[in-house]
Amino acid sequence: MITLHHLNFSRSTRILWLLEELGLDYEVKAYVRDRTFRAPPELAVVHPLGKAPILVDDGLVLAESATILRYLESKYGDGRFVPAAGTSDRAIHEEWLDYVESSAALPAMFTLLGAKTGGLSAGLAGFAGPELAKALTLISDRVKGRDYLMGDRLTLADIQMSYLVAALRNIGQLEGYPAVSAYLERLEATAGLRKAIEIGGTMTPPVG
Amino acid sequence: MITLHHLNFSRSTRILWLLEELGLDYEVKAYVRDRTFRAPPELAVVHPLGKAPILVDDGLVLAESATILRYLESKYGDGRFVPAAGTSDRAIHEEWLDYVESSAALPAMFTLLGAKTGGLSAGLAGFAGPELAKALTLISDRVKGRDYLMGDRLTLADIQMSYLVAALRNIGQLEGYPAVSAYLERLEATAGLRKAIEIGGTMTPPVG
Repeated sequence: MITLHHLNFSRSTRILWLLEELGLDYEVKAYVRDRTFRAPPELAVVHPLGKAPILVDDGLVLAESATILRYLESKYGDGRFVPAAGTSDRAIHEEWLDYVESSAALPAMFTLLGAKTGGLSAGLAGFAGPELAKALTLISDRVKGRDYLMGDRLTLADIQMSYLVAALRNIGQLEGYPAVSAYLERLEATAGLRKAIEIGGTMTPPVG
Repeated sequence: MITLHHLNFSRSTRILWLLEELGLDYEVKAYVRDRTFRAPPELAVVHPLGKAPILVDDGLVLAESATILRYLESKYGDGRFVPAAGTSDRAIHEEWLDYVESSAALPAMFTLLGAKTGGLSAGLAGFAGPELAKALTLISDRVKGRDYLMGDRLTLADIQMSYLVAALRNIGQLEGYPAVSAYLERLEATAGLRKAIEIGGTMTPPVG
């Protein structure tokens, strides 16, 4: 039995999306953020990280979206959402998948948390601004002329990327990057993400 | 031919470490940070991310430490630095490896960059402080009674973790976490990391 511990307005919508794409049977245990947008303490009982997504499969408890996506694909996906093993494309796909929550997330999260907490100091803005522009330019250059990061086929890297670009759009950071906005709209038009949002809600809260 | 594009005081020491552990032939192209601690523009010619590590192997150009570590292990390591495929330990190892540059790096980098730029705003400190304490407690709990994250055997997750805890020690953030300090000292006592530091220099700059 697969259980997804899901939190509203969070990265766990990505896992719902892949579970839907794979057509798996699973149950959702839903948690709601508190008034300060924090995860409730119940999640820390499931995994010491205390945040979502957390996947439980046959007693194995896993956090970290990239880990869960790779785990599900490898166990149930039969290679449908990754390029073929041993190819250069597979290595490049791994790089994009890792990139989302490391190099790209760092300036994005500075910008997102800065926006929520009254702004960044000049020193931090001097780091985050140029780094975020670099990330959005890199993503934009990649999806120009491609439907998805690896070409015409949806992969784990796109699913991983969806939350980050949705969160950035939500605070107006995709203005000036029409190719990234169009890419996000293509992701949102997939049956899998539409179903995930129907079950788990939108990835980002209403603006304002 | 394998080439590592290496930057002083950076994450690429981790790749040097694994290359040494694997006993591979490789060449190092060394870059030096500028006076503002930024990577020089030459790195952006090698890979658009413009930072290190970058590995080039038979024409394949790869960034992101986790990607490079997995790539090298999978191609040349014969499973020596990961738990056996298909086991729960393998999934847990993947989680620790992903954890370093996502959940753990976020509050660590806030703290590190905050320290460099005159401090964090109250709002950001209110996020970064508790999240960093949570990360260090999690790592501490894991390495108490274990030599390494996965037990008595060095894995990719330890190599990935080394930079983060070394950078935190450098700004005094390991005080109060003696198990994490002792773990870092065990990593630094390995022949592989000693050799990597001999070739590439220390991971973090002198304090002060």
